[in-house]
Amino acid sequence: METGPKKVLVSEVGPRDGLQSLARTMPTEAKHRWIRALAASGLREIEVASFVPAKLLPQMADAAEVVREAVKLPGVTVLALAPNLRGAQDAFAAGVHKVTLPVSASEAHSRANIRMSSDEAIAQVGRVCEYRAGLDAGKRPGVEVGISTAFGCTLQGEVNEDRVLEIALALVRLGVDSVGLSDTVGYANPAQVRRMFTRLVRELGDKAGGAHLHNTRGQGLANVVAALEAGVTTFDASQGGLGGCPHAPGASGNIVTEDLVFLLESMGLDTGIDLEALLAARRVLAEGLPGEPLYGHVPDAGLPKTFHRATTRP
Amino acid sequence: METGPKKVLVSEVGPRDGLQSLARTMPTEAKHRWIRALAASGLREIEVASFVPAKLLPQMADAAEVVREAVKLPGVTVLALAPNLRGAQDAFAAGVHKVTLPVSASEAHSRANIRMSSDEAIAQVGRVCEYRAGLDAGKRPGVEVGISTAFGCTLQGEVNEDRVLEIALALVRLGVDSVGLSDTVGYANPAQVRRMFTRLVRELGDKAGGAHLHNTRGQGLANVVAALEAGVTTFDASQGGLGGCPHAPGASGNIVTEDLVFLLESMGLDTGIDLEALLAARRVLAEGLPGEPLYGHVPDAGLPKTFHRATTRP
Repeated sequence: METGPKKVLVSEVGPRDGLQSLARTMPTEAKHRWIRALAASGLREIEVASFVPAKLLPQMADAAEVVREAVKLPGVTVLALAPNLRGAQDAFAAGVHKVTLPVSASEAHSRANIRMSSDEAIAQVGRVCEYRAGLDAGKRPGVEVGISTAFGCTLQGEVNEDRVLEIALALVRLGVDSVGLSDTVGYANPAQVRRMFTRLVRELGDKAGGAHLHNTRGQGLANVVAALEAGVTTFDASQGGLGGCPHAPGASGNIVTEDLVFLLESMGLDTGIDLEALLAARRVLAEGLPGEPLYGHVPDAGLPKTFHRATTRP
Repeated sequence: METGPKKVLVSEVGPRDGLQSLARTMPTEAKHRWIRALAASGLREIEVASFVPAKLLPQMADAAEVVREAVKLPGVTVLALAPNLRGAQDAFAAGVHKVTLPVSASEAHSRANIRMSSDEAIAQVGRVCEYRAGLDAGKRPGVEVGISTAFGCTLQGEVNEDRVLEIALALVRLGVDSVGLSDTVGYANPAQVRRMFTRLVRELGDKAGGAHLHNTRGQGLANVVAALEAGVTTFDASQGGLGGCPHAPGASGNIVTEDLVFLLESMGLDTGIDLEALLAARRVLAEGLPGEPLYGHVPDAGLPKTFHRATTRP
């Protein structure tokens, strides 16, 4: 039996995570163009918006409009962030395929980020799952959670690993489809990532979700290698490393989609993504945000002579 | 039996690899100060100079003087590069503990870099080993090779993996103490690094040397994780990523010592290096090369609240 290279899903979070962290707002038409270009590169999952009050995040005021346009793209799972039931209802009404809800393992981060305790955030997720269960069977979007600060927190420091797993199991019991782990502040190391995702996969089985890793301390792709070994098959990344550049230039937050796809394809894994087309999408992004710094080693250095896409390997 | 954390040797190549790639020359006194500061951070191996004609590399004209000062540092193995027998003789005369000799797996790169074929470069190494064998038993420095372009070459593209292993075995037969592999052009991916070093360790045993990895395409630390799994225990790195910035700013060549040490110590491995002292050495480097761009995510972002050195882990 010919199985071909192992598939890995890259989930692009730039249009949500990236854009909401900028002071400026990308025009709606530019968002449409960028998301279309991302989809054209072969990305099969894109987080396009955040359903929060426009007065809190004016960058996301056009969330419903962006979703309605994105869901026209064939073969793309359209994801949005919703901080609570109200946001999830709005996201569902706009037609998202899936919502992602924020739950933080650090109490301090949870309160700072969404003004709820971790347990209150978990309860919110329960309400979203209940609400979804009341929808027509054919119209039930996915619900996922990435547990924030799963590897440590800038506010409280260490985060208890057992507590992270406890939260993950509680979320599954409430009906969440998948629970991933997020290195929100760039504290994770490969040994920890391997250990934590190994536990997550063992305890959650097919409800174990993806890895959201940051490159704040240059460890992003090293952590990806460790997560791959633990069985993770979904990775968040942001084109140009957009989103979360809390420190000096170059010390980006999100891992860069271009560098991640290069890593995975070079290793012989199949992302379905064409890197040249992904670099074309980067140019569309740059046109939509003139002058905004974009990161990425592969865009700077170019593809090696020896590079072959997993799906076109000789 | 208490074994403690596993030890990993970080070999600092900045004073040689880094400085020789700059157009400017660091004053000899500044080199002394920087090397002393590096040693004070706990680095146990430093490549301090290159023994090549001063008219080819004026940055290295003070090689003998730098070596004579560096060997005074207790507990530090002082390494120098020598391209041929003459260079090795000069390095030995200056008192190095070990020389490293260049052999490239790519014929095209070998000719461009040292104007010799790969086989001629291997023969040079043989002559150095013969010469060393003629020295008094107590005065025989180490001889090592890192095989350049072991993972691909910008000039010739693919490099045959069997050929790389053949070269490694030939070098061991000639009497070399250890043979490592170098990703000279930043082409390597973790799958390839794991595969190649697994073969190297299997075929060379305790003569399998370290990994010299580049971060040109952002894959440097991801490749370190793969090499660790293959049993590699020595890693080259350059403070501030100095050396080899052939592309746009940020697309550094050598992996950054600060980021590598953070990776290893965070994973619970023992490098013997104090990161705060290493950051102090970086300031000494910056004073010696005013205005020179230095890279590194950890220096930019700072250490996490949760960071513990392997040797001081609670």
